[in-house]
Amino acid sequence: MKKNFAAKAGSEKELLWQSRFSEPMDERALKFSSSVHIDWRLYKEDIMGSIAHATMLAEEKIISKADAAKITKGLREIEKEIEAGKLDLDWRQEDIHTLIENRLKEKIGDVSGKLHTARSRNDQVATDTRLWMRRTADEIIAALNAMNQTLIDKAEASQKIIVPGYTHLQRAQPILLAHYYLAYLEMFSRDVERFEDALKRINRSPLGAAAFAGSSLPVNRRRTGSLLGFSDILHNSIDAVSDRDTVIEFVSACAVVMMHLSRFAEDVILWTSEEFKFLEISDAFATGSSIMPQKKNPDMAELVRGKTGRVYGDLIALLTMMKGLPMSYNRDMQEDKPPLFDAATTTLDCLHIFDLLVQHTRVREEHLARITANDLSLATELAEYLVRKGVPFRDAHRITGKIVSFSLQHQTALPQISLSDYQTFSPQFDQDVFDVLTPEASVNRKRSEGSTSPQSVAAQLRRHKTKKKSTPPRPLY
Amino acid sequence: MKKNFAAKAGSEKELLWQSRFSEPMDERALKFSSSVHIDWRLYKEDIMGSIAHATMLAEEKIISKADAAKITKGLREIEKEIEAGKLDLDWRQEDIHTLIENRLKEKIGDVSGKLHTARSRNDQVATDTRLWMRRTADEIIAALNAMNQTLIDKAEASQKIIVPGYTHLQRAQPILLAHYYLAYLEMFSRDVERFEDALKRINRSPLGAAAFAGSSLPVNRRRTGSLLGFSDILHNSIDAVSDRDTVIEFVSACAVVMMHLSRFAEDVILWTSEEFKFLEISDAFATGSSIMPQKKNPDMAELVRGKTGRVYGDLIALLTMMKGLPMSYNRDMQEDKPPLFDAATTTLDCLHIFDLLVQHTRVREEHLARITANDLSLATELAEYLVRKGVPFRDAHRITGKIVSFSLQHQTALPQISLSDYQTFSPQFDQDVFDVLTPEASVNRKRSEGSTSPQSVAAQLRRHKTKKKSTPPRPLY
Amino acid sequence: MKKNFAAKAGSEKELLWQSRFSEPMDERALKFSSSVHIDWRLYKEDIMGSIAHATMLAEEKIISKADAAKITKGLREIEKEIEAGKLDLDWRQEDIHTLIENRLKEKIGDVSGKLHTARSRNDQVATDTRLWMRRTADEIIAALNAMNQTLIDKAEASQKIIVPGYTHLQRAQPILLAHYYLAYLEMFSRDVERFEDALKRINRSPLGAAAFAGSSLPVNRRRTGSLLGFSDILHNSIDAVSDRDTVIEFVSACAVVMMHLSRFAEDVILWTSEEFKFLEISDAFATGSSIMPQKKNPDMAELVRGKTGRVYGDLIALLTMMKGLPMSYNRDMQEDKPPLFDAATTTLDCLHIFDLLVQHTRVREEHLARITANDLSLATELAEYLVRKGVPFRDAHRITGKIVSFSLQHQTALPQISLSDYQTFSPQFDQDVFDVLTPEASVNRKRSEGSTSPQSVAAQLRRHKTKKKSTPPRPLY
Amino acid sequence: MKKNFAAKAGSEKELLWQSRFSEPMDERALKFSSSVHIDWRLYKEDIMGSIAHATMLAEEKIISKADAAKITKGLREIEKEIEAGKLDLDWRQEDIHTLIENRLKEKIGDVSGKLHTARSRNDQVATDTRLWMRRTADEIIAALNAMNQTLIDKAEASQKIIVPGYTHLQRAQPILLAHYYLAYLEMFSRDVERFEDALKRINRSPLGAAAFAGSSLPVNRRRTGSLLGFSDILHNSIDAVSDRDTVIEFVSACAVVMMHLSRFAEDVILWTSEEFKFLEISDAFATGSSIMPQKKNPDMAELVRGKTGRVYGDLIALLTMMKGLPMSYNRDMQEDKPPLFDAATTTLDCLHIFDLLVQHTRVREEHLARITANDLSLATELAEYLVRKGVPFRDAHRITGKIVSFSLQHQTALPQISLSDYQTFSPQFDQDVFDVLTPEASVNRKRSEGSTSPQSVAAQLRRHKTKKKSTPPRPLY
Repeated sequence: MKKNFAAKAGSEKELLWQSRFSEPMDERALKFSSSVHIDWRLYKEDIMGSIAHATMLAEEKIISKADAAKITKGLREIEKEIEAGKLDLDWRQEDIHTLIENRLKEKIGDVSGKLHTARSRNDQVATDTRLWMRRTADEIIAALNAMNQTLIDKAEASQKIIVPGYTHLQRAQPILLAHYYLAYLEMFSRDVERFEDALKRINRSPLGAAAFAGSSLPVNRRRTGSLLGFSDILHNSIDAVSDRDTVIEFVSACAVVMMHLSRFAEDVILWTSEEFKFLEISDAFATGSSIMPQKKNPDMAELVRGKTGRVYGDLIALLTMMKGLPMSYNRDMQEDKPPLFDAATTTLDCLHIFDLLVQHTRVREEHLARITANDLSLATELAEYLVRKGVPFRDAHRITGKIVSFSLQHQTALPQISLSDYQTFSPQFDQDVFDVLTPEASVNRKRSEGSTSPQSVAAQLRRHKTKKKSTPPRPLY
Repeated sequence: MKKNFAAKAGSEKELLWQSRFSEPMDERALKFSSSVHIDWRLYKEDIMGSIAHATMLAEEKIISKADAAKITKGLREIEKEIEAGKLDLDWRQEDIHTLIENRLKEKIGDVSGKLHTARSRNDQVATDTRLWMRRTADEIIAALNAMNQTLIDKAEASQKIIVPGYTHLQRAQPILLAHYYLAYLEMFSRDVERFEDALKRINRSPLGAAAFAGSSLPVNRRRTGSLLGFSDILHNSIDAVSDRDTVIEFVSACAVVMMHLSRFAEDVILWTSEEFKFLEISDAFATGSSIMPQKKNPDMAELVRGKTGRVYGDLIALLTMMKGLPMSYNRDMQEDKPPLFDAATTTLDCLHIFDLLVQHTRVREEHLARITANDLSLATELAEYLVRKGVPFRDAHRITGKIVSFSLQHQTALPQISLSDYQTFSPQFDQDVFDVLTPEASVNRKRSEGSTSPQSVAAQLRRHKTKKKSTPPRPLY
Repeated sequence: MKKNFAAKAGSEKELLWQSRFSEPMDERALKFSSSVHIDWRLYKEDIMGSIAHATMLAEEKIISKADAAKITKGLREIEKEIEAGKLDLDWRQEDIHTLIENRLKEKIGDVSGKLHTARSRNDQVATDTRLWMRRTADEIIAALNAMNQTLIDKAEASQKIIVPGYTHLQRAQPILLAHYYLAYLEMFSRDVERFEDALKRINRSPLGAAAFAGSSLPVNRRRTGSLLGFSDILHNSIDAVSDRDTVIEFVSACAVVMMHLSRFAEDVILWTSEEFKFLEISDAFATGSSIMPQKKNPDMAELVRGKTGRVYGDLIALLTMMKGLPMSYNRDMQEDKPPLFDAATTTLDCLHIFDLLVQHTRVREEHLARITANDLSLATELAEYLVRKGVPFRDAHRITGKIVSFSLQHQTALPQISLSDYQTFSPQFDQDVFDVLTPEASVNRKRSEGSTSPQSVAAQLRRHKTKKKSTPPRPLY
Repeated sequence: MKKNFAAKAGSEKELLWQSRFSEPMDERALKFSSSVHIDWRLYKEDIMGSIAHATMLAEEKIISKADAAKITKGLREIEKEIEAGKLDLDWRQEDIHTLIENRLKEKIGDVSGKLHTARSRNDQVATDTRLWMRRTADEIIAALNAMNQTLIDKAEASQKIIVPGYTHLQRAQPILLAHYYLAYLEMFSRDVERFEDALKRINRSPLGAAAFAGSSLPVNRRRTGSLLGFSDILHNSIDAVSDRDTVIEFVSACAVVMMHLSRFAEDVILWTSEEFKFLEISDAFATGSSIMPQKKNPDMAELVRGKTGRVYGDLIALLTMMKGLPMSYNRDMQEDKPPLFDAATTTLDCLHIFDLLVQHTRVREEHLARITANDLSLATELAEYLVRKGVPFRDAHRITGKIVSFSLQHQTALPQISLSDYQTFSPQFDQDVFDVLTPEASVNRKRSEGSTSPQSVAAQLRRHKTKKKSTPPRPLY
């Protein structure tokens, strides 16, 4: 069908104002202020909210049951029409709410107007946005949990693989690869917590706040709230329609997820380089070059890292938009949706693709074994060996420093230096020094909770595997 | 005393590295990387963390009880020295941790070195920062609660004062001034919730994660955690030393507080203007002009609004700094402190001054009574009156629109238009129309929960007054 | 036609890589990395750049003239197809460059491949982006100049209208409305300068830098540069393909334009409020409320103010994206286009609508005359009057302050206070005090260059009207 | 001396207002709004501006020559006192302007008050800020030029050193190290241009705009402008005191410099890693670890990268602060100084330290020679070799792809593969294939202007060495 029923609707709307206005809205102004190409994403929430509102109005006898039934039926049909791609997103419709409203009038006539009893665009939009954030937060939590499951799988499979651990991008001490994956598991788990906390505040109903001062009709806000699965209502009507702090909190949580992903992406980019060679991305998730036949590029990781800026930008857009706005609803607030939608979609897409990327990445174990076996990062073990033999730490550090210089100068790895050479640095050295000069020894000797030792890593894994995931029931409507 | 013991300490430190390094650090590099002028704010937390660490080391018999006692006593003295302004913040000291460490060595000699057993700068800094954030979050929560108490007081005192309510900065409907204050109470209450949620994640101990891989000594992380009042430990050592998501979350919560304050400030600036004249700031919280004798400027509100950008900037600084950092600690992370300290201090200062400003602001009731009595925002009442008389809403809106035009043209306020004139617009008008044409009638007729009606406002007030405030016990140490 | 020729093209492309890759790109990865839905905006520049490249290749005898002609003809046809909406933006096409390339191959066969001689996607994209920025900067400059013309017209028409001038949103001194418009004229004139300066750096050609190291073929970069109207080439091939500082500079200039518009918008919102009543927006550029019949909302101004955040966010997106990227092209850079396009479009749209809004706004002169005639901001005149009569400034200020208090207490405007009352404050007062107590006198007495005096305002106007606008010639191609 | 002369001054000031104000300013409010701890940095500019103003006032006979001389002498003495550390930055002084003013009064008595003839705090602050930006922009330009000289030196010394060139952090094609340095030279040269362009707008005088409406005294704005070395005046008094777009432009230019530095820093961090090993930082500009004796950390580069966020944050602070401010000066604008000073200082410090770091970094030529000799990035040469032998490019790419796979499988570098093996991939291979399989051959074969060929690199170097640097004359005052 997809016909353009905007023209008529537009003039109807002008009729409604015309008593006060002497000329119709300029087309350029209407186009500038139209948001239907953005907020169509709310169509499901808008219909859901309207049905709950109509249901309550009938229950409270503000409208008749028959009218409520007609409204509900009409809205259900419109939902199907939209999902079948039959409605045209004509910008003359101003926004998705007007589009649905006008279509409903086409379908059921004047009774459609009763839907607007005791409801304003202001509380309607706020309700839709919160329902959308709730659904999308659930999706992001699910995507984070899926990523975490991948990390658990990866960690389980890499409890014996040792990689150089870095600080300052300089090799510091050997660590278990599993330990590394578990670090990201912790970060993404906090991200889940943050969305769950945000949901507590998001999941409160503004419906019934009307324009901003409340309604003179005895609407039952608790009832619409509960029909829509809200856990509470917002208790002040001015606040309900005009604050956007939960939108900021949502996007802020997205920004932290992206920050975490950007760090993970950086590691993947480094680790798949010729210089590191720790990982190899599956061909299905890398790209080549039409010029340089040898290239295999980690584009997915680069794009995720690049898109981080986008979500940061969305956060700034929201914070700036809200800065210094005076009391109650201002039209500026319509600009909350582009950054919200963009941040949520970008975060979801990045989580999904990065999860796949991690899954489709192979560890180059042989190479890792080779480099960790001979690395200078075993120097700490050497110093601790001397300490155990009674050398004061400061001296042990100094002696080991000299051995490091010797190793660099002679290009001889620490385990390859002969015992007699070791003994020129300190008489404390004995044959057993070579026992500590392996990355396995280094890792195994760790004792503190949460460390990179195999025991600690196994304990961390157990902890995550037994953690319960909350799955809040949401109304099917 | 305030002597500069930097030089000696500096050279000592160089000794510790010199085995590997052939020349001392360039002065300009040392100065560039020094942070003592910033992180001295952590001195209390640093000492607190060190005492807990020493206590645990002794309990676990990693060091002797006597040594632990010496260390603790020395640190307590240093705390007093610092608080007495006796320690010089020489940039050669690099950071507050080095400054305290070097001073401890001066006081108790080599035994001071034992404090560094199984601890690295990385987990030490992370611990200090979290303790500082916890203390400061507590302070911000207290400041928010104080502001909320002021708002409760103000709301209680203004349950009968009617102000124009605005959308789009156009007068929309009359509201109770109390209802307005309660809107901010809701916002700041959510801010409290956000800090409380952030505290759950902040209040986890990184201590014992050492450089990033854990320690080979059997440190008891649960014990130091509990000595320091942490509610849990961070379970992965890499994550513990190298993530900063809680810092971002903290500053993000500050940014939302500032956003709320900037809106409140905007209202104060508008409402104290000659044009609005709703409020008058006490002379003690306003400034004048040495040129223009009539001026009385709301500088405190303007500054609060202006400082909002600062905290937004701090948030961006942190997000940018963390973007794309590879595994584990990188020195970039030292740059978390300037934005954290600035955001926290700015938010606290702004909360305090704005609380005072609200307290020292008088409502100009007579003026408000005058303008609300005759305002066009009563037009909605007129339309609803007609609806009650059986006129369809659309017609009622059109008729009212015409009356509005009439009122504007004849510069006659709605309550001043004669009944006969009203009846030219619609025969439904009767003498009782004048009963609804008062702001009190408008406010009183509201029925929905959370609305601006006196009953609803009273209910909101009761709800806030009976809410319990959580006061988490913190270790006195 | 709009057929989907993606499948075939896709497999062709995979053929080109397959020697090194053992499996095709995952669909999800391709979709994630595809940008054709964004960068289709570059189609004109892409075709323009390709024609210039082919022309040069033929001139340098790297390809035959016949081949260049075929390529050019094919590209011209594709341009028409795109403009006729005949090409499908299938995401499988990856980007607009691939889409055009694949379509060209369909049309002219293998000879299309010669277009890629000595050119890489990297220099191609950089060229397209610069051409797009150049064209769009020209458009923004034109929009700024149009806005400035409106301001000149408005200023000319308001050289005798006096408005209260504000500092701290408190009335300070009377000013000519023309002077106010001229202030924005200055701001937008600097914005023009900034875009002109940015254009000097934007308008340099990267074409011929190839992947990043240059080409082994003797391409003539000066020639393609001049064909495309570039004023210079970029002199280093690594820099040419991998820097984005001009994109940041462009968006930064947009952000400042938006900042200026947000301030102007704030004034419009304030000045159209019931409280200020300085301006009235034409009905065609305002909106009403379907609930509150009296409402007339300045939505266009609010939306412009709200969209400011969006452009700030775009700037942060770009800065974050580029932070810490290593040498030469990284795929992250693909993310430069969404914020660039969004910032440019938003700025252009806002300039256009705001220009219209200013044009369609009426000054409420009578109201302004009334309030400025009796305003306390004449107090400065009073003080200066006393100074001229020999009273030291400090005393004059003190006396005037007391008169201000008197005026407030007795609710009597300064010009209405009787001479005898004035003389109770100072014997210096004489009948001529009433001559200075008019806003006209205040304005007329200004002497400094750039002040609000009628002479100064006229001089400012002359200056702007005689300023030459640069109109750089661009290649028609 | 350093005595606290605040108390008296404060009460004086209160006297000046007291006619209108019934109580003195609250201490907490005064402290909150005080900025002397920030804006003391402007003391030199403040004195410079005041002397110019006094000089002009005397020339125009608005004050006597004797008074101007007294004022000038007093100000010169205060400048010396401040530079000798004799003035106490007491917050009760509000700001540096008040501090200097009060001190001047102490020194020369009431004549000091004449300095304020026809000048307001608003134009005074705007003048000081612009003078400070001008001086600091000059310093930043000098630092950029110094960095560029270092890059020229480095490039000259590395015209024969070949490094792997990267795209996507994957080795792409060999390049000359000089070519790499020259890329940064281009970036920093554009940064210089940007500051020079900003200076055109910064270097215009607001002095004489008074509070915002101009002065009623015949001040000569051109004269003060020229005394202070401004190249023009700002032509509208409202704009002059209340816009901050040049501050934003300045900080925006800083942000781009930092972006460039962050990329350079990333390369240094990568290139000094064990994995890359291209560079070695001098011990004087690196740090070690007290735990891990082998560590040598590139802290200076990490800090520079980390501080990038700070300057981005400063930019957002300014943009946010200015968003939506109404006409003319608002106190919010006082908040322009912390981000301006921070951004400028951070950028300067980072430029200086990074310049030193580049100077103190050694290239590991042997290692580079080894890895570039055998790298797969020579594959492009192989493909081009086949093309020259008549193989179509597509086939050549496919064949080379297979050779790359062979090389990876047999762990044999391209130059080590035997001719007979090559011939199994294509009969076109001949003994001369080994001539192209060297990084030198790859680099030498480049032909396009701006490429990495030795000729192009030499030409780039010549271009930079002969470029003239502008050195604008500034008034000595």
